[in-house]
Amino acid sequence: MDTKDYLVKGKIKLKDYDTSYNGRLEKDEVKNELMPKNLELMAEFQEKLYADGREGVLIVIQATDTAGKDGVITNVMEAFNPQGVKIASFKSPNKTELKHDYLWRIVRNLPERGTIGIFNRSHYEDVLAPRVLNLMETYNVPDYMKEKDFYKKRFRQINDFERYLSENGFRIVKFFLHLSKDKQKENLLERIEMPSKNWKFETADMENRKHWDDYEEAYEDMLNNTSTDYAPWYVIPSDRKWFQRYVISEIMVELLKDMDPKFPVLNEQERLELQKWRGVLLGE
Amino acid sequence: MDTKDYLVKGKIKLKDYDTSYNGRLEKDEVKNELMPKNLELMAEFQEKLYADGREGVLIVIQATDTAGKDGVITNVMEAFNPQGVKIASFKSPNKTELKHDYLWRIVRNLPERGTIGIFNRSHYEDVLAPRVLNLMETYNVPDYMKEKDFYKKRFRQINDFERYLSENGFRIVKFFLHLSKDKQKENLLERIEMPSKNWKFETADMENRKHWDDYEEAYEDMLNNTSTDYAPWYVIPSDRKWFQRYVISEIMVELLKDMDPKFPVLNEQERLELQKWRGVLLGE
Repeated sequence: MDTKDYLVKGKIKLKDYDTSYNGRLEKDEVKNELMPKNLELMAEFQEKLYADGREGVLIVIQATDTAGKDGVITNVMEAFNPQGVKIASFKSPNKTELKHDYLWRIVRNLPERGTIGIFNRSHYEDVLAPRVLNLMETYNVPDYMKEKDFYKKRFRQINDFERYLSENGFRIVKFFLHLSKDKQKENLLERIEMPSKNWKFETADMENRKHWDDYEEAYEDMLNNTSTDYAPWYVIPSDRKWFQRYVISEIMVELLKDMDPKFPVLNEQERLELQKWRGVLLGE
Repeated sequence: MDTKDYLVKGKIKLKDYDTSYNGRLEKDEVKNELMPKNLELMAEFQEKLYADGREGVLIVIQATDTAGKDGVITNVMEAFNPQGVKIASFKSPNKTELKHDYLWRIVRNLPERGTIGIFNRSHYEDVLAPRVLNLMETYNVPDYMKEKDFYKKRFRQINDFERYLSENGFRIVKFFLHLSKDKQKENLLERIEMPSKNWKFETADMENRKHWDDYEEAYEDMLNNTSTDYAPWYVIPSDRKWFQRYVISEIMVELLKDMDPKFPVLNEQERLELQKWRGVLLGE
């Protein structure tokens, strides 16, 4: 697989992306062979990343409603030892969060070196919902933050923030789970019709669906303005979950391979120290 | 007083600044008349800032050792109602903090809208001590963070960070308390000789004093690279504490006057609501 097919570089249009693309692969082969191999590789790399402890990883997941964020976390990120993973979900900001700058709650949830942070939604919410639903109007903020073009400044602010992280030991990768409107209808109906899925249905999703075109425009703007060398966006076709998850696992393996974490190598003094303790234990 | 005399604009040399400057003012007049008036103004502005709740203020204080950071906080910032003030002191980063990007602990301590945050030391420590004492060498971070010029990148990162805050409703002002080497000697001797000040003496101060010239260079670089329109540095002459504190109070009054906070004005509906409750109370 060439993961560059999914990388956002230059200006893109979402309608040029086939949400039902399957990479000409068979579901069975992916589920039974390719995917398990990737999950194993991810686990191996993570152990070294954790042992090394110098660099961290931040995974950002944004998506159209019902596109499968939770499923990606359950089925792909399960590869990682939970000890070295920190998952943070961001809902609508609460009162305390609104009293702060919008990155405040984000930074509080950043991963430590040696660990992997997964953001289920993220700071990108702040250039999506407030823009589409005109939420800034309702916030107690200075007037200049209510100007129509204010969110454009946020693209620069977010790029600066991500560049800063990348320059201080954190690798960033961002996944946009891309779904067709038809497939969303199908998913929403399933949540309504299947009792075990009822709990996932939210009226807000119906409200957002009304703004489908506005959201598509906001997503495109986000992707076109914040996909950088140091924090690239990937558009993941999400009509077929098995393929969606496989693409993400491929990108994760590639990223970790590129980071090339290694178990720390002891220096002479540390080696002697270990040998000394070995002697103590054997002499007991 | 023209506070611009203390503002860092363009490239400055610290040796051009007279640390014992007194603005040709008399200590008594300042202490008994000018200063109390400023403290009163600061309190009035703060109440409105708090009531309005849309903008916050961040005050950053950096200084040569013994230059009077604690005294400034006690004697100037006491003007503010503590309910609306958040003071944060930053010492050498602990183990958890070192596992994060250097702004992580800073952001966690940022003020809310409507309040004033005071940083006793700050993110600027990360372009001072690690540079002068070569601390990056000892941290478990990627090799590229150990390169000699790495801290220069941090000037840009810090500017980006402060611009972001300023664009999202927070005003920033930064004070560098500037002391002469002779006056520091005097202050250190006092801490050694006066029993009630012994607790303030730290051996680390003697160590830092050895690096006086390196620190001066690091301070100059910091001032010359991070004094911006949105987050200006002021160099405060600190040999005379009464004058040091007065200059800071002047700059604070000017900043708050410029922000011009106002008690929120009720709209028609809110006014009617208040009248309704007035009726209820009077009718009891």
